[in-house]
Amino acid sequence: MSKGRVCLAYSGGLDTSTILKWLILEGYSVVCFLANVGQEEDWAEVEKKALALGAERMVIEDLQREFVDEIVFRAIQCNAIYEDRYLLGTSLARPIIARAQVRVAQQFDCDYLSHGCTGKGNDQVRFELAFKACNPSMKVIAPWRMPEFIEKFQGRADLLKFAAENNIPVSSSPKAPWSMDDNLVHCSYEAGVLEDPDHTPPKELWTRTVDPADAPDKPYNFTIHFDKGIPVKVVTPEGEATDSVELFKLLNKIGHDNGVGRVDIVENRFIGLKSRGCYDTPGLTIARLAHVDLEGLVMDSKVRKLRDQFVTIEWSHALYNGMYFSPEREFLENSIIFSQKNVSGEVRMSVYKGGAYVLGRKSDASNLYSQEDASMDSLDTFSPMDTTGFIAIQAIRLEKYGLQKIKDGEPLSK
Amino acid sequence: MSKGRVCLAYSGGLDTSTILKWLILEGYSVVCFLANVGQEEDWAEVEKKALALGAERMVIEDLQREFVDEIVFRAIQCNAIYEDRYLLGTSLARPIIARAQVRVAQQFDCDYLSHGCTGKGNDQVRFELAFKACNPSMKVIAPWRMPEFIEKFQGRADLLKFAAENNIPVSSSPKAPWSMDDNLVHCSYEAGVLEDPDHTPPKELWTRTVDPADAPDKPYNFTIHFDKGIPVKVVTPEGEATDSVELFKLLNKIGHDNGVGRVDIVENRFIGLKSRGCYDTPGLTIARLAHVDLEGLVMDSKVRKLRDQFVTIEWSHALYNGMYFSPEREFLENSIIFSQKNVSGEVRMSVYKGGAYVLGRKSDASNLYSQEDASMDSLDTFSPMDTTGFIAIQAIRLEKYGLQKIKDGEPLSK
Amino acid sequence: MSKGRVCLAYSGGLDTSTILKWLILEGYSVVCFLANVGQEEDWAEVEKKALALGAERMVIEDLQREFVDEIVFRAIQCNAIYEDRYLLGTSLARPIIARAQVRVAQQFDCDYLSHGCTGKGNDQVRFELAFKACNPSMKVIAPWRMPEFIEKFQGRADLLKFAAENNIPVSSSPKAPWSMDDNLVHCSYEAGVLEDPDHTPPKELWTRTVDPADAPDKPYNFTIHFDKGIPVKVVTPEGEATDSVELFKLLNKIGHDNGVGRVDIVENRFIGLKSRGCYDTPGLTIARLAHVDLEGLVMDSKVRKLRDQFVTIEWSHALYNGMYFSPEREFLENSIIFSQKNVSGEVRMSVYKGGAYVLGRKSDASNLYSQEDASMDSLDTFSPMDTTGFIAIQAIRLEKYGLQKIKDGEPLSK
Amino acid sequence: MSKGRVCLAYSGGLDTSTILKWLILEGYSVVCFLANVGQEEDWAEVEKKALALGAERMVIEDLQREFVDEIVFRAIQCNAIYEDRYLLGTSLARPIIARAQVRVAQQFDCDYLSHGCTGKGNDQVRFELAFKACNPSMKVIAPWRMPEFIEKFQGRADLLKFAAENNIPVSSSPKAPWSMDDNLVHCSYEAGVLEDPDHTPPKELWTRTVDPADAPDKPYNFTIHFDKGIPVKVVTPEGEATDSVELFKLLNKIGHDNGVGRVDIVENRFIGLKSRGCYDTPGLTIARLAHVDLEGLVMDSKVRKLRDQFVTIEWSHALYNGMYFSPEREFLENSIIFSQKNVSGEVRMSVYKGGAYVLGRKSDASNLYSQEDASMDSLDTFSPMDTTGFIAIQAIRLEKYGLQKIKDGEPLSK
Repeated sequence: MSKGRVCLAYSGGLDTSTILKWLILEGYSVVCFLANVGQEEDWAEVEKKALALGAERMVIEDLQREFVDEIVFRAIQCNAIYEDRYLLGTSLARPIIARAQVRVAQQFDCDYLSHGCTGKGNDQVRFELAFKACNPSMKVIAPWRMPEFIEKFQGRADLLKFAAENNIPVSSSPKAPWSMDDNLVHCSYEAGVLEDPDHTPPKELWTRTVDPADAPDKPYNFTIHFDKGIPVKVVTPEGEATDSVELFKLLNKIGHDNGVGRVDIVENRFIGLKSRGCYDTPGLTIARLAHVDLEGLVMDSKVRKLRDQFVTIEWSHALYNGMYFSPEREFLENSIIFSQKNVSGEVRMSVYKGGAYVLGRKSDASNLYSQEDASMDSLDTFSPMDTTGFIAIQAIRLEKYGLQKIKDGEPLSK
Repeated sequence: MSKGRVCLAYSGGLDTSTILKWLILEGYSVVCFLANVGQEEDWAEVEKKALALGAERMVIEDLQREFVDEIVFRAIQCNAIYEDRYLLGTSLARPIIARAQVRVAQQFDCDYLSHGCTGKGNDQVRFELAFKACNPSMKVIAPWRMPEFIEKFQGRADLLKFAAENNIPVSSSPKAPWSMDDNLVHCSYEAGVLEDPDHTPPKELWTRTVDPADAPDKPYNFTIHFDKGIPVKVVTPEGEATDSVELFKLLNKIGHDNGVGRVDIVENRFIGLKSRGCYDTPGLTIARLAHVDLEGLVMDSKVRKLRDQFVTIEWSHALYNGMYFSPEREFLENSIIFSQKNVSGEVRMSVYKGGAYVLGRKSDASNLYSQEDASMDSLDTFSPMDTTGFIAIQAIRLEKYGLQKIKDGEPLSK
Repeated sequence: MSKGRVCLAYSGGLDTSTILKWLILEGYSVVCFLANVGQEEDWAEVEKKALALGAERMVIEDLQREFVDEIVFRAIQCNAIYEDRYLLGTSLARPIIARAQVRVAQQFDCDYLSHGCTGKGNDQVRFELAFKACNPSMKVIAPWRMPEFIEKFQGRADLLKFAAENNIPVSSSPKAPWSMDDNLVHCSYEAGVLEDPDHTPPKELWTRTVDPADAPDKPYNFTIHFDKGIPVKVVTPEGEATDSVELFKLLNKIGHDNGVGRVDIVENRFIGLKSRGCYDTPGLTIARLAHVDLEGLVMDSKVRKLRDQFVTIEWSHALYNGMYFSPEREFLENSIIFSQKNVSGEVRMSVYKGGAYVLGRKSDASNLYSQEDASMDSLDTFSPMDTTGFIAIQAIRLEKYGLQKIKDGEPLSK
Repeated sequence: MSKGRVCLAYSGGLDTSTILKWLILEGYSVVCFLANVGQEEDWAEVEKKALALGAERMVIEDLQREFVDEIVFRAIQCNAIYEDRYLLGTSLARPIIARAQVRVAQQFDCDYLSHGCTGKGNDQVRFELAFKACNPSMKVIAPWRMPEFIEKFQGRADLLKFAAENNIPVSSSPKAPWSMDDNLVHCSYEAGVLEDPDHTPPKELWTRTVDPADAPDKPYNFTIHFDKGIPVKVVTPEGEATDSVELFKLLNKIGHDNGVGRVDIVENRFIGLKSRGCYDTPGLTIARLAHVDLEGLVMDSKVRKLRDQFVTIEWSHALYNGMYFSPEREFLENSIIFSQKNVSGEVRMSVYKGGAYVLGRKSDASNLYSQEDASMDSLDTFSPMDTTGFIAIQAIRLEKYGLQKIKDGEPLSK
């Protein structure tokens, strides 16, 4: 008799194939689930493998559109970035995948949700917090945190032995000396040889961008149009894209071909450890730069400072820490959307051998930039004498500060 | 009889030469002051010109070392950046120049401080707030905000006419169609044709960086060593630099030769207007990137978030707005220095055709990164079962959130 | 011939009567405007006086409802407070008054807006920033910042002399040795003898609250009901109020009778000076306390922290600094409203001799508080073993911190 | 043979007596530790009981001075408060107690640290995070999170039965229907009947303050002197105190006698649950109010806003969440101390029937308040005309905002 039905996030790799088989041997029936969030995959092969290993069924869902529309574009709208460097590619996809997995589990009357994440990483947290929020009554089986499982599979040799004993097909191509996670936004590389933070990633590591040195010898120019902070059109010499997924893929291709979007960092995991990660994020790097630039033209300065200090940083941390389905993310998102009312216009961009550059920008949506006002020559809308008073009032505090310093024997003009 | 003695910030250009002559004609005696903060200048020529026009004396001071040691390195320590893009090159130099001008004015018993800043820009504010803090009793003459001056000099033609009448030598080379400000950190370009934010800066505009397309065809690698967040050594294939000014100039040269550090933005002036500025900032761009990277390796995550949200953004705004000599800058700076206790180590860098990249980093100063801990394979210092409890506790709020959504008829797993 | 028509904020007092007459003598025609924001006033007497002095007309508008509904309740929703003490009574009323004055000025084709605020205070800034936002094309006449006016009226004696010469009736009751500003929310007291911050306000100063020592000898209990953060019903032993203005007046009466809501502080004016102010704010003090308390029961902890750190403090500063009609206030207000979705319920309160106390609270709107969960005795919905893992993961950073301290020779357990 | 030596936090109550006996029965030897942080206790009785139950020794340490000097005064310096209401009394004591317990455990070669905290509260987290930071190599025994212990002791009846079987003396006085935690700063009351947040605490609950209705019928006045934000002298009609512990006890007495410092709230535990707590905190309530007031007189406005937004809130959260021994607390504390350089002076206070009031304040340490400057009448150090320019510049953004609104069909002066 079955111990119950498990909905397992299944990728077709050695780890999740082992978990699939192990769950079946432990007495569970298993529905496999694989989300298409834009990664490279031989979908038919994965399905074949799952069923061959004994899965009741293999459900594959294309989530690319909800991924782009609900989360990637939100990240662009708030210039999301973690620790000043990381564009959150993996974190952005997790809530979409987890929510779909819960939906599938509900649809097929599963009792459990399961995944193959390791016990020291961020992803287990992201998946399970999303599971709990989306359906608190579903239980989770996390084999890599179960003593009996960990003991049985202490290293890759144990996995390969189990595979051989259980007819789990193992890829003949050698395993990369690092682990990867791939979606529409980026590919991440970590662990293995990368655990030495002074080990430079080898050239062949990067899969989503060409090496800048191999990129074309001349700049490639194009234009991104935004409506309320969302990219709505990309125009290139070869044509244009307006569909959200197509448009994002076009930006990815532009970034890929010109080597844009590589970062290599040491970051702080939610779990309290530091880890080293390399990421190539072509399209989002370009879109974020264009969006930041357009905000310069159209967003009020005080709103921008508040947004930068609180919304951008907090939304990014919420996503990184797996808190997408949370009151605070919803609260912040309401602010993001409100802040983008006038962020409409177009940004002309150029990419060249690893770099992305803004060539110009324009907008009809905001009156905040005025050539007339900005001009040093024109005084029609501005009385420079006003500045005298402005400075005098601003100086009141500072004069007192300077006088106090003199009194304290530390004059500022020492 | 003299109306008093003025200490004038004098550059030798048409504007300040006009002001110098005008002040003399108005009955003031004038001590000219020029700060060497690393800009390109024919110092002897400026002196000759000032004295020829009637200045009592021309004081030129080399402030490069105090500029780098007191302010540029502080900016590096806090990853200073304004509106996510601008590295504050002009803002950083202003306090150093203003303080020295006050010192000179005090030394030569001046009654007034004067400058040639326009009435719509940030620099007038930065200079005068620093003047007021450093010596509240000195009065300021800001001709470009004085009705009688503005009326007399309504355009460049008026300046040239006055120059001709008063034997002010005018450079024969044509004026660039934008204005520039140059110091050790960067050169800025604004106004003129740049007032159209959609007008791409022409190739010949940039003076501190070669065009990425003209940069060498292969990456150039080097290493920056930091001690408590301050760059203390740069090692290149050709040798090394350890003196602060020399080291910074070396980074400038590396950046220059490889086209690193150009930005083109629309920014928010303190004065409430938006303006478009282009900046090339080679060395600081590289140093900031290396510093941000090293912090990833050695800084605690919570300290980093607090520092990013408050210290970095507020220090950058304080500098941009001319509030260097202020209680809040001093308060923030105390935090910056404290935060850098363990930010020591070295960062291997590469630059190539406009881009700067981190190749690796190491540090003995902090125990926060541990290859053993970070490794997904090692469980010696980490019990993955703990994560189960961690997730369960973190999920308490989120489960309630999910249940509330169900009750409200908006289930998260819709 | 008239120099144009001025809409003057007219209170009937000596200052604004002088300005009214002076404007007429200077050649302007004047429409007087007085806002009823709940202050004590002999409205007919003011009208009579204005017309007698030559005003074209006297417009009095009852703005109490828009004051309460649009601003006072918003302040309650975000627990507005300035510098941890001041409930912003004056600041809250200014935008409502200024907007109405612009409306009246537009209605009667005025060319100018005028007010009697002094040149060193906050109110001039608040009024004029609101004027400029509401109608940038209207010009402002601020007599207390005009050299010719200031010179003419150097002290109270000059005002009285002018009054005598121009048939301006002067109140026979002696002027209080401080200035006051009164509205539905509070009465403020500043200047005069209060300029010595060590001078205790005399008992007779306070007008909106009885002395705690004179308040009844037993507590008075009542209940406030909130809907989405807004007080919608107050229930007392004598009856209840549900209309917004009536309800707020009832809270004022309760606070008044029991001596609740006095503060005496030194605050930082926007204008860079410190000033001493005393305020009695009976109803808002009570309503704010009840609201803060209810949020404890129903608001998510992370949302609350974010709201406290940025929305509450920034909204309060925006209001204090006269930035009500600003992009940032609108941005913040959107967050405030969103944050209040579940802030519904009732709070039982008690007031007694100067103090306000919460006796209990309940809500059906949120599932966040659960007696079952909170109970130390119940483990049905909570596995205490989870906390072990939670602590272990939280401790990772801290253990490294402790070990680093040992290595640095500063062990924490010294 | 012993399983090892345990250092147990022992209070003499039923819970920790049970744990003591249970540990011994399980085969451990036990050193009992009790910290004197100012709570009410029969110290000799506790020692007698511990030894009678089989403890190897009973160590009692007076930590009152380090508690006051290292933590309570720091809380005063930064106006610490949690969720706008709670003065953190329990949280403040925990790090001091935990550090001392680690010291004692080290001194007596213990292998384990143990405590009697429940598995759902904050205190277990606070103790254990401090243990881990102070000595990561010591293991923790937390019986209330151990399945075998919880199963054995499912309710009070089981504890009483075990007590009877093991000669554990049980207090004959009936247990209060809530739990309490008492130290120099406050007494907390939670659980039991208080778990209903609408149940008003009965009059007899409060132990550290008299009922306001029972307090004296006239105000009691006194003065607190501060040096760099630390209370250094309290002067009353009866005499003065300057020793830190004595001074704090004097403030406690003043607050106690006059019913000052009661709060009753629902708060957010670190552990993700909401709980209801009542606290009476007489002395700290008074000291905090006086300190906030003095800062109004002497602290720069920008420093204050920065400090309020990040230092106060973050330090308070760090303490509440048990993160005292953490990099972020150390980082924040460095800012706190720096911010207090000029916070010296004296504050005259009054307490009356539950309320505390400021009567006046003065300071020689700062030049920021100036009666001359603040005076509305004096224009000697201030040109009101400057304000015109100040307003004009501040209005630039707001005028554009108003014009945009008109363009968008939503005029502000609707």
